[in-house]
Amino acid sequence: MTELPAVKAALKSQRIETPSWAYGNSGTRFKVFAQAGVPRDPYEKLDDAARVQEATGVAPVVALHIPWDKVDDYAGLAGYAAERGLTLGAINANVFQDDDYKLGSVTHPDPAVRRKALDHLMECVAIMDATGSRDLKLWFADGTNYPGQDDIAARQDRLAEALTAVYERLGDDQRMLLEYKLFEPAFYTTDVPDWGTAYAHCLKLGPKAQVVVDTGHHAPGTNIEFIVAFLLRERKLGGFDFNSRFYADDDLMVGAADPFQLFRIMHEVVRGGGLEPATGVAFMLDQCHNIEAKIPAIIRSVMNVQEATAKALLVDAGALAAAQRGGDVLEANAVLMDAYNTDVRPLLAEVRQEQGLHPDPLAAYRATGHAERIVAERVGGEQAGWGA
Amino acid sequence: MTELPAVKAALKSQRIETPSWAYGNSGTRFKVFAQAGVPRDPYEKLDDAARVQEATGVAPVVALHIPWDKVDDYAGLAGYAAERGLTLGAINANVFQDDDYKLGSVTHPDPAVRRKALDHLMECVAIMDATGSRDLKLWFADGTNYPGQDDIAARQDRLAEALTAVYERLGDDQRMLLEYKLFEPAFYTTDVPDWGTAYAHCLKLGPKAQVVVDTGHHAPGTNIEFIVAFLLRERKLGGFDFNSRFYADDDLMVGAADPFQLFRIMHEVVRGGGLEPATGVAFMLDQCHNIEAKIPAIIRSVMNVQEATAKALLVDAGALAAAQRGGDVLEANAVLMDAYNTDVRPLLAEVRQEQGLHPDPLAAYRATGHAERIVAERVGGEQAGWGA
Amino acid sequence: MTELPAVKAALKSQRIETPSWAYGNSGTRFKVFAQAGVPRDPYEKLDDAARVQEATGVAPVVALHIPWDKVDDYAGLAGYAAERGLTLGAINANVFQDDDYKLGSVTHPDPAVRRKALDHLMECVAIMDATGSRDLKLWFADGTNYPGQDDIAARQDRLAEALTAVYERLGDDQRMLLEYKLFEPAFYTTDVPDWGTAYAHCLKLGPKAQVVVDTGHHAPGTNIEFIVAFLLRERKLGGFDFNSRFYADDDLMVGAADPFQLFRIMHEVVRGGGLEPATGVAFMLDQCHNIEAKIPAIIRSVMNVQEATAKALLVDAGALAAAQRGGDVLEANAVLMDAYNTDVRPLLAEVRQEQGLHPDPLAAYRATGHAERIVAERVGGEQAGWGA
Amino acid sequence: MTELPAVKAALKSQRIETPSWAYGNSGTRFKVFAQAGVPRDPYEKLDDAARVQEATGVAPVVALHIPWDKVDDYAGLAGYAAERGLTLGAINANVFQDDDYKLGSVTHPDPAVRRKALDHLMECVAIMDATGSRDLKLWFADGTNYPGQDDIAARQDRLAEALTAVYERLGDDQRMLLEYKLFEPAFYTTDVPDWGTAYAHCLKLGPKAQVVVDTGHHAPGTNIEFIVAFLLRERKLGGFDFNSRFYADDDLMVGAADPFQLFRIMHEVVRGGGLEPATGVAFMLDQCHNIEAKIPAIIRSVMNVQEATAKALLVDAGALAAAQRGGDVLEANAVLMDAYNTDVRPLLAEVRQEQGLHPDPLAAYRATGHAERIVAERVGGEQAGWGA
Repeated sequence: MTELPAVKAALKSQRIETPSWAYGNSGTRFKVFAQAGVPRDPYEKLDDAARVQEATGVAPVVALHIPWDKVDDYAGLAGYAAERGLTLGAINANVFQDDDYKLGSVTHPDPAVRRKALDHLMECVAIMDATGSRDLKLWFADGTNYPGQDDIAARQDRLAEALTAVYERLGDDQRMLLEYKLFEPAFYTTDVPDWGTAYAHCLKLGPKAQVVVDTGHHAPGTNIEFIVAFLLRERKLGGFDFNSRFYADDDLMVGAADPFQLFRIMHEVVRGGGLEPATGVAFMLDQCHNIEAKIPAIIRSVMNVQEATAKALLVDAGALAAAQRGGDVLEANAVLMDAYNTDVRPLLAEVRQEQGLHPDPLAAYRATGHAERIVAERVGGEQAGWGA
Repeated sequence: MTELPAVKAALKSQRIETPSWAYGNSGTRFKVFAQAGVPRDPYEKLDDAARVQEATGVAPVVALHIPWDKVDDYAGLAGYAAERGLTLGAINANVFQDDDYKLGSVTHPDPAVRRKALDHLMECVAIMDATGSRDLKLWFADGTNYPGQDDIAARQDRLAEALTAVYERLGDDQRMLLEYKLFEPAFYTTDVPDWGTAYAHCLKLGPKAQVVVDTGHHAPGTNIEFIVAFLLRERKLGGFDFNSRFYADDDLMVGAADPFQLFRIMHEVVRGGGLEPATGVAFMLDQCHNIEAKIPAIIRSVMNVQEATAKALLVDAGALAAAQRGGDVLEANAVLMDAYNTDVRPLLAEVRQEQGLHPDPLAAYRATGHAERIVAERVGGEQAGWGA
Repeated sequence: MTELPAVKAALKSQRIETPSWAYGNSGTRFKVFAQAGVPRDPYEKLDDAARVQEATGVAPVVALHIPWDKVDDYAGLAGYAAERGLTLGAINANVFQDDDYKLGSVTHPDPAVRRKALDHLMECVAIMDATGSRDLKLWFADGTNYPGQDDIAARQDRLAEALTAVYERLGDDQRMLLEYKLFEPAFYTTDVPDWGTAYAHCLKLGPKAQVVVDTGHHAPGTNIEFIVAFLLRERKLGGFDFNSRFYADDDLMVGAADPFQLFRIMHEVVRGGGLEPATGVAFMLDQCHNIEAKIPAIIRSVMNVQEATAKALLVDAGALAAAQRGGDVLEANAVLMDAYNTDVRPLLAEVRQEQGLHPDPLAAYRATGHAERIVAERVGGEQAGWGA
Repeated sequence: MTELPAVKAALKSQRIETPSWAYGNSGTRFKVFAQAGVPRDPYEKLDDAARVQEATGVAPVVALHIPWDKVDDYAGLAGYAAERGLTLGAINANVFQDDDYKLGSVTHPDPAVRRKALDHLMECVAIMDATGSRDLKLWFADGTNYPGQDDIAARQDRLAEALTAVYERLGDDQRMLLEYKLFEPAFYTTDVPDWGTAYAHCLKLGPKAQVVVDTGHHAPGTNIEFIVAFLLRERKLGGFDFNSRFYADDDLMVGAADPFQLFRIMHEVVRGGGLEPATGVAFMLDQCHNIEAKIPAIIRSVMNVQEATAKALLVDAGALAAAQRGGDVLEANAVLMDAYNTDVRPLLAEVRQEQGLHPDPLAAYRATGHAERIVAERVGGEQAGWGA
């Protein structure tokens, strides 16, 4: 067990990155339910993100999505963020919402479409130069819906070609984070369907290419913490897209569906040194708040990550290792469960107070009146959302 | 094995119902890729459906979706269909695309929303009266995203209340077909998640309530043909929403993902008497053609259902029963596989020619020039699609 | 929230039934790892069960498995149990380990095999008469491995016939609990694969037939607590076979794989009145302790059920209902999570002490020296296990 | 489309390896149903395998499993095989059926157990030296059942150490084939759970280490042909363990559960050059014939692989590539389906006759009377089976 002061220090230094798109509208293919007060541009998204940071103290980084967050002046946007105590995080490229991308982007059979997609990726790196972002996050919707539709291996060749071009464009302090996903929106093949595929490409590209684990992107029965442990051991874990799911890529609040899994993941992160800033693991949220209030939901997610982290830090590592070495199955499991069964909410309240924060972030947020204010003020214009 | 003339007669008398919405645009939550030439109103959808019927000869029924297919004069719409050799099939109620339905429709905690949803269902029955449709198809998106969000049992009470009210409104020749679905758009609980729930409600309602099996709505590993056989045995199989999937509710062309499963399903249909019109089993398609040309995709789906049906009819039932009785596992399996491995395309070509049709429906369709014509003529206006 | 005294009372009156077979050896198809000290007959199993009861105070009932627990004098066995503060619980019929059952038992194509299986079921009821057991638990391994192997509907007919015969044999105070399972050992069809099938049969049989929910017997993505809520609402929930799993029917210690799911299940049990003895819900364990020490694992499982129950009892039902009625998704979820995040171990320690028990059941068990004693004393003979 | 003579030549030169253990008894964890006439030693297994080769002409290689096939004189065993027209194939190591391996073999926390496991692997290489086998097939049951039970990363270290030692022991013409499996018999973590893990280890080891794809070892929804295409592109596909499954690792006859998937896999094999002997892809069967007659089931499996291969060879590669390049989704799919829908049984009958074989391998086998003979002659002794 880490000593309490060290646990607290680790909790205080944790950085959780919130995604700009989570502040806007989202939905399922059946319906997007708009919410009053939702931001209409990247600046209002940053205003909201500032409230999350204000309430939690551990969420000072905001990821952007291009073109959803397109502005004329990215340095200006970074300045706007800085004024609010925020920095701009990962730049998420979007090569899936243009009519040209119906059959793929960087893996499309038509070289002209591939060129267009690559241009967009290059533009994203240019934006990183302007915003000072470290990470280019790449998720490709590319794949096929029908057997025979396209050549699986040829698409891998095209993918490798595009990734190589982008990799070579990266600056010294920039990284490429490659995300994988089992399926959706492609239903037959997906060009980066699993961590193995992402890993294989990153390995060939070099040390600046790393894998992102989105906790909602796996087949049923997949042991995600195994992947986390494996990638950490290989120094190929670039970060997380945290969310939770019961079935597919549900994008629910992190920790909502399986808090024990989140704890197990954070246990592997702690065990593998992933909490140490030097490893560069980015703790990002990637959620869709379809029916719940967005800012409180994001705060809740941040708190859930903190609680899982706190529990992971409380695992008695010495006792665990001893039981493992001795082959005492029940005792080893009991040591882990002791930490999980601990109610860490009082500890986190204490940590927050030591940081000069309200012990209850949700109460703190409610007290600001921000929720009512944005409903009153953000009238007219077009709400931000997926595709906008 | 059914004698060949009987096989041919069964194939000629099969009726496959195509859904009006499959002629319009659809997509995933990430993007709807619009296609040129797509219908802009229910009349143009019927024009397209008439081409499918013209090419295949077995698809003279078209299902409507309300409000997507709302018109002022439903009797007039039925007449428009009749002029094209079509009849109007199931009326599909839609209580999931209004902002009020964010937390449910007939199971919503607010009685006012439930009332509104019920009114819509009643309106659908009134439309059936006008169109002469036999079937009211009910699929509810109702459910919850988070544990605790609502009371599971109370939602069942509300569901039962609404279903009862609708059931009592049905005319003597009208049926209620209740569809189930594992998940999506609700991610934690779905109020009708499986056939057992649909069956239990239908059983209480009475003989006019039956279950619809959508082949994409099951958990991984579910044996769909078992459900088909079970419901047929209980006289509670109202019909199918045919489509195919690799992972979730992919809504791909029927037979595209697992043609052997489709054959096994049709084998149970044949075995249980479900091909006989008296059983009332409706063979409906429910697909989303996101990236492929819509009319040819529907024709292909109709052909795939026909091929699976033909193979099922070719199973040597006597030899199968003998092997089953004798406990000869390999022989029983071999009898089934013999039928499956048969290339039935020549047989179907022959059947079509005997019906005065072109042996190849896709070639027949291509020859009409309809595809080019609609692209040229359907310019301007708003294309039909999910939500429109 | 239930008042604390009521919570404590409920926890003190809970009854958890442990299965005789969990005290013996078990394993996977690859290997059974024998453990020293394992019982060699039903009497030694009861000796072990008495230790679990002694340590926990809530596990005074032991389920038997016939023929694994066959004895000459069942009344004598019941007396042996009574002397140790135990009663005999459900009689579990076994019609899957005889060579005759290769292609099924009550659904076998050969009437002679069906007769033999039915005779065994009748014998089990006779044993219930002798032991005073209330419940006959029926799990059928029946199914097929290959498409075509047997007739799905005919097997349902045979199943119904056997169940009816057994049902008619039951005494007034006896019940039939019908268990379902997705797959294994049959891989293509299983004759009772899901709750819907079990429910449909039980409904036809009558009030003495109820469904058993084994928490490891579902397809991936199945919402088990929905089934629990549904069956409770229908008064058809006979009880649980508790265990946990990551993938298939792993039969791990209950609560080990997904403690949040266990809590959600117990929340529905509490919500639906299932903790009240009058509803007759039996809380049984059904586990295979392949690699861990058996008695401590069972104690741990009992504790895990208690902790989930305690958390469920601590849910503030009033606040939950208010948030649900108001459509406050985040608040409703938060109310539930507050209870889940509570560390109930101190409360349970207090409850135990009020009952005159050691606050830590595992420490209490270790202190008895029973573990060492059985290793020393149970030498020679044949260890009990699956199939023995 | 490959020209017909080339198709035939490819079919005639295909080599399918049958596993010695498929000739013996197997079962599920619930029951092993013994069959009359089953071999009692490796020599009798070879006698049976010779019948499969005699009937099919494409199955001259037999894989061994150590210690199940332990003999004093391996060179003698190879000679016995040669006399029957057979060669000995992959040596399958078994480090999961000794009591010492309860918590793992090469990844066990205890170095003494790891040493023992490594010794067994080295012994297997020595056997390869004696038999002339090219392939060492490694499947590890290693993993854990409970969170916390052991350290995930440390187990990877131990695994890497053992694999390296074995790799260094391999001769110039020997290979190590590393198999992965999602779960079972370990239920929480498995040390080689997916292709990514196997690939990463093989990559580090060198060119003589390659991945084996067992078609039953994936999570639901996994696209196996993608993995095949990916590994072929990386020159890391060592071979297949063919079987089929509906749910988990069912080990049913290959092609029985999803013949379309088998075809898609063989299409990727053909597309990626995997049928050419130079690529070294081994086509092995790995099945458990629990309830069906073993030799005919193996013959059937061989035939199913042949039929899928024939269909894959019939794909019109030029037309497919053209449709893919043109983005014609429906046409590309149609080209593939044309081949799949072809009845290739007449072609295979012709191929067999050109090879001097009976056109129907099952009829040929039945005519030999071997089935009756082994039942009559193999009386007494202990039947071979899993664990024996």
